[in-house]
Amino acid sequence: MRSLVTGASGFVGSHLVEHLLACGDEVIGTTFGEGAGLSCRTMPLDITDREACRRVLAEVEPDAVYHIAGIASPPAVAGDPMASLLVNVGGVHAVLGAAAALPQPPHVLVVSSGEVYGGAGDNGKSITEDISTAPRNDYAVSKIMAEEVALLFARRNNLPVTIARPFNHTGPRQSEAFVVAAFAKQLALIVNGKQPPIIEVGNLGARRDFSDVRDVVRAYRLLVNQGVTGTFNVASGNGVSIADILRYLIDITGVSVTIQPDPKRMRPAEVPLIVGSAEKLKEKTGWMPQFTLKETLADTLDWWVQGGFGGEVKIGSERLGEVRAVGLG
Amino acid sequence: MRSLVTGASGFVGSHLVEHLLACGDEVIGTTFGEGAGLSCRTMPLDITDREACRRVLAEVEPDAVYHIAGIASPPAVAGDPMASLLVNVGGVHAVLGAAAALPQPPHVLVVSSGEVYGGAGDNGKSITEDISTAPRNDYAVSKIMAEEVALLFARRNNLPVTIARPFNHTGPRQSEAFVVAAFAKQLALIVNGKQPPIIEVGNLGARRDFSDVRDVVRAYRLLVNQGVTGTFNVASGNGVSIADILRYLIDITGVSVTIQPDPKRMRPAEVPLIVGSAEKLKEKTGWMPQFTLKETLADTLDWWVQGGFGGEVKIGSERLGEVRAVGLG
Repeated sequence: MRSLVTGASGFVGSHLVEHLLACGDEVIGTTFGEGAGLSCRTMPLDITDREACRRVLAEVEPDAVYHIAGIASPPAVAGDPMASLLVNVGGVHAVLGAAAALPQPPHVLVVSSGEVYGGAGDNGKSITEDISTAPRNDYAVSKIMAEEVALLFARRNNLPVTIARPFNHTGPRQSEAFVVAAFAKQLALIVNGKQPPIIEVGNLGARRDFSDVRDVVRAYRLLVNQGVTGTFNVASGNGVSIADILRYLIDITGVSVTIQPDPKRMRPAEVPLIVGSAEKLKEKTGWMPQFTLKETLADTLDWWVQGGFGGEVKIGSERLGEVRAVGLG
Repeated sequence: MRSLVTGASGFVGSHLVEHLLACGDEVIGTTFGEGAGLSCRTMPLDITDREACRRVLAEVEPDAVYHIAGIASPPAVAGDPMASLLVNVGGVHAVLGAAAALPQPPHVLVVSSGEVYGGAGDNGKSITEDISTAPRNDYAVSKIMAEEVALLFARRNNLPVTIARPFNHTGPRQSEAFVVAAFAKQLALIVNGKQPPIIEVGNLGARRDFSDVRDVVRAYRLLVNQGVTGTFNVASGNGVSIADILRYLIDITGVSVTIQPDPKRMRPAEVPLIVGSAEKLKEKTGWMPQFTLKETLADTLDWWVQGGFGGEVKIGSERLGEVRAVGLG
């Protein structure tokens, strides 16, 4: 199985590359910026460059394409809707167009988001794929658009396409633009004696469904390897508040910290509660999460305590410059 | 009522401006290229320029915004999906963002298309708004995306938004990139003795629902003036084949012509039959079409016989250069 991973140097992409390699796949990763540190063959690719997408896919002739590249932070998308449109929607069009043009079109996985459901989970029920989407922010709308592009290529070009709707996911190597990483980094600095025992926080009330990124990428591979098309949630099925996440992280460190609200980190939480159902994914592929939330948080914290990104390539919204607020991740 | 019309120098925009002026509205039209020949105040505006949109809307402070500007030809969109994304989707985002930012947000009408339904009308039933969309080409997908942007602003910003889904519409001043105008122009040249009596045609089998552009713009104003939000088809409710259109036009001229297939005009017809239901529009606003198809065709033909665009500003897909095939209009 020859697999092409776009956005291979990103948070999810890098975990996916590791998982695919561990499974014995031949992996080629594309990167927008530098791809240093990746253990697979890498090729530079701007996914908004349609000709470049055609060239790369024609050269690689992949059996599977995991289209992971995109602007993953809601505040970053809100900050530059036009650029986000080109990357998160035009990029899907370019990659799928290149895939459809191959003599043997690959199976393509397109990454959407559980955010497409908007407030559908406010009633406390876990969200299934048949519920109407009602996105509440520009990021979620960009993902709905990406889905529409994917559906067009499936309908018109008979391209085998899987749409994944991951709910929140975290783990080592996530950008501190996301809440778990933002907490973990601060706690790591405190543990390492480089920051006073004060942690700055945004909204703590929202409840989200957090998975481990390593479980998420396993779901992606299962869907692609089993040739499953259609739309699939990837979720833990459990709602946990941001306050609980913080408490778990603090418990793991064993240190005593003061929690201090920081207006800069206050991303408006459009939706108080989002919990996804992954029953369809489980039924179709046999997927089960392997990490508990506390294991995920411990591993994430440990990664930051060990130095975090250190001198490594910075991962995150490199295309859009600084992220203006902290997303939920 | 102060009304802002984007794309005012285009086919639909120019008819809308005339109608609004005739109704006594104060009208300001924005144009991407030259706005010569318009009888309202005009302002230059690139709808993909978010800052410019903000400036124009802040200066005009409209009660209503008719967002007509966009790339209207499916072949043009297919030819440059990235530019089309910026214009047809990003443009809506920029205009609606500017509208939502005003102290007194205007009512905004966003123009989608009956093409969003794709093959939903293949069963011969007329298409109502509650039918699932299933776009089959890039143009239709760009309109679905535009709708998603409109729904976001309605949901998140409480902006009063109407989404219009016009089915095919034609009339004087339509670009010859569309089939009725392409036929009418050739017949006018034949009538005027400037072309041998041979008419070049593309696919003649597809059946579509044609309205008069003047009826369509009346529907737009009724929806906005009555403050109706939601999604509305604008359609005649009648399916007519392209072959019938051609026959009607030839009958009107009274000349004898040879019909010659032209491969360059063969736009793939993804869907054999599309007929829309405008019952919801009629119920909500009292709208009724005022032009019969034969009147529309006669007026269109007459306009071409009288000289067509002549030395006037060229209307059409000015942003994307030459259109590569003929659309249905």
